[in-house]
Amino acid sequence: DALRTAGEDASTCTVVGLACGSSHSVAVLANGTVLSWGRGEDGQLGHGDAEERVWPTAIFGLQGGEVTAVFCGAEYSAAVSTSTNSVFSWGWGDFGRLGHDDCQDLFVPKSIAGLAGRSVTTLACGDTHTCAVTDSGALLSFGRNQNGQLGLGTDDDALTPTLVSALEGHRITHVACGAEHTVACCEDGKAYSFGWGRYGNLGDGHRTDRWLPTRITQLEGKRIVTTACGWRHSIVLDDQGCLHTFGWSKYGQLGHGSLADQTLPKPVMDLDGVRITLVSGGWRHTVAADDTGCLYAWGWNKFGQLGSGSTVQIETRPVLIQPKFSDGQIIALACGWRHTLVADSLGQVFGWGRGVNGQLGCGNHTNHMKPVLLECLSAGTMDADALLAT
Amino acid sequence: DALRTAGEDASTCTVVGLACGSSHSVAVLANGTVLSWGRGEDGQLGHGDAEERVWPTAIFGLQGGEVTAVFCGAEYSAAVSTSTNSVFSWGWGDFGRLGHDDCQDLFVPKSIAGLAGRSVTTLACGDTHTCAVTDSGALLSFGRNQNGQLGLGTDDDALTPTLVSALEGHRITHVACGAEHTVACCEDGKAYSFGWGRYGNLGDGHRTDRWLPTRITQLEGKRIVTTACGWRHSIVLDDQGCLHTFGWSKYGQLGHGSLADQTLPKPVMDLDGVRITLVSGGWRHTVAADDTGCLYAWGWNKFGQLGSGSTVQIETRPVLIQPKFSDGQIIALACGWRHTLVADSLGQVFGWGRGVNGQLGCGNHTNHMKPVLLECLSAGTMDADALLAT
Repeated sequence: DALRTAGEDASTCTVVGLACGSSHSVAVLANGTVLSWGRGEDGQLGHGDAEERVWPTAIFGLQGGEVTAVFCGAEYSAAVSTSTNSVFSWGWGDFGRLGHDDCQDLFVPKSIAGLAGRSVTTLACGDTHTCAVTDSGALLSFGRNQNGQLGLGTDDDALTPTLVSALEGHRITHVACGAEHTVACCEDGKAYSFGWGRYGNLGDGHRTDRWLPTRITQLEGKRIVTTACGWRHSIVLDDQGCLHTFGWSKYGQLGHGSLADQTLPKPVMDLDGVRITLVSGGWRHTVAADDTGCLYAWGWNKFGQLGSGSTVQIETRPVLIQPKFSDGQIIALACGWRHTLVADSLGQVFGWGRGVNGQLGCGNHTNHMKPVLLECLSAGTMDADALLAT
Repeated sequence: DALRTAGEDASTCTVVGLACGSSHSVAVLANGTVLSWGRGEDGQLGHGDAEERVWPTAIFGLQGGEVTAVFCGAEYSAAVSTSTNSVFSWGWGDFGRLGHDDCQDLFVPKSIAGLAGRSVTTLACGDTHTCAVTDSGALLSFGRNQNGQLGLGTDDDALTPTLVSALEGHRITHVACGAEHTVACCEDGKAYSFGWGRYGNLGDGHRTDRWLPTRITQLEGKRIVTTACGWRHSIVLDDQGCLHTFGWSKYGQLGHGSLADQTLPKPVMDLDGVRITLVSGGWRHTVAADDTGCLYAWGWNKFGQLGSGSTVQIETRPVLIQPKFSDGQIIALACGWRHTLVADSLGQVFGWGRGVNGQLGCGNHTNHMKPVLLECLSAGTMDADALLAT
């Protein structure tokens, strides 16, 4: 039983990381076990087949891998082990997004040779491209590059992790990938963007693609500590807990009370006075958590992905998800294309939104308009044996 | 009962056209009724909701529309009525692929104003772009254009149908769209290609994108009568019934016994002596019918999409689908991303391959490795009332 070994404390079975792709989900437990569920057609679940799973299921090929963080692209997945300096990827491989020097799909996880021994601290997956950050602050990218989303100054795809040399000398701390663009931030608080820019999602006041990292000068004076991207929108969080959003707003996903695209970063005014700690961008929605455990969501709600319980299809301003369902802090938050998952410091995991592919992990194919406690992943109710057996 | 009116002959309930998207299917009957089934998440079924259908279901919004032909892009659909000179589109609308001067998704069919009154004879849908041919031989295009797939000499998207002026003076008779490229042929038998070309799928010996239609000179001396595209591969049929394929071959989808891309058209030698009449390209597979009612398939078979009954994952050469299941001619043939549908002159309809979204229309979510008779769509067993009621 790799999930729970003899004498192991129950706390090691707590969810510490979550990621959502277009229609699938991945979680990592404190003991390094990785679970996946939802749509599996392209190998994104990593169980060696193309079938969907409606319950979280341990990925056999990662057992013993000491995984510490998980990431999802639209139809692929990745896992990082900081203790073994390994990065694994699996799922749809076209354009080299898996980083294995080919374009093969993979139905089981495989260690990326080009990152072996590199101390990768965080990663981001877009639709067809992937970026990795090392502990020395280097940014590496691979996959499709036709809009310059790899930041290499060309539009040539890269089948293996490639150093973004234009950012050498900057210590990158965090990176986020949209469908075809990238936003990174540095230790000095500066943010850079590159790739597809048609909706203003590069935040430079323009709508043109950029093949090289470009500093988002509008953020001068702010210290950016993390970044997130939805499909075509961008989000940065400053050290005061203030969110700034830009890019596509057709579904209200920027949170400014409008459907108008923003080509420059703009503070989400409705969250003034709230200290945001975590944020995630979905296909057309955005969810953020504050330092008191409150959750706010805005954008597209067609499938209940805002968790507000409302049937309103679009919310252009942040909506507080009520009732507040946790007494703890939100420690993990992930938006898929049409669904959302969160985990709190009490070991509870909740999901809501689209469920038709089993991506909510609650054993059915139902959409949920409000947060559902995922008992199978939550402290006190998790049955490690059952998770392994499904 | 719009499917079968009093005194109407049973023959008017025969399937005369089929189309398949990534995970959905559309059929049109001789009486103009349009049915859809499979994945509906993006509105591609046209029933006003986002739900899937496992049975063919009449599209209410097209009743009385006298539709004569249907077409599917990855996550959208279109229908043409030659008697009313109307073209309808619905589904995922990003980048203007639906042609309605915006990027809205549509969950019910809407007539394209920019084509109203134009006599559209045929249409093609790719991943994000659409092309229409008129009876005067004009080609119009709309949707995403970042690889020049609209043939307009730019990479600007077009939200409404736009004349491909570079082909004025040529009478276009047929067009096909791959994911991001286009192949058209003319009354004089010449073929032109444009758009994304990285895999040699433009057939010009190169791997570069082309923003303007370029004649495929390698076909000099052949008279091309129709074209088809898979996701990243291209197929042309000459007036001798000989297929020529080019582009991506990673899954054997070109049928040349190899996984090597072809940047120039190459005859499918294994079909020498066979007169092909119909051909369709899927995501990573190809299916062709000859003039005796035989069907041949090659490429990816992971989900049974070749219909061979074999568990071999890739066939690099045409495989005869056995036993020959029809005594008639094949009159319609459509490959989806992972499934295949055919209709014959006896009124029988068959489906096979991926079924997890209900895209086979046989009432379940099962993959089928061999052709399954779709009784609900076939002559003698079709129950028009049941189709309307589902």
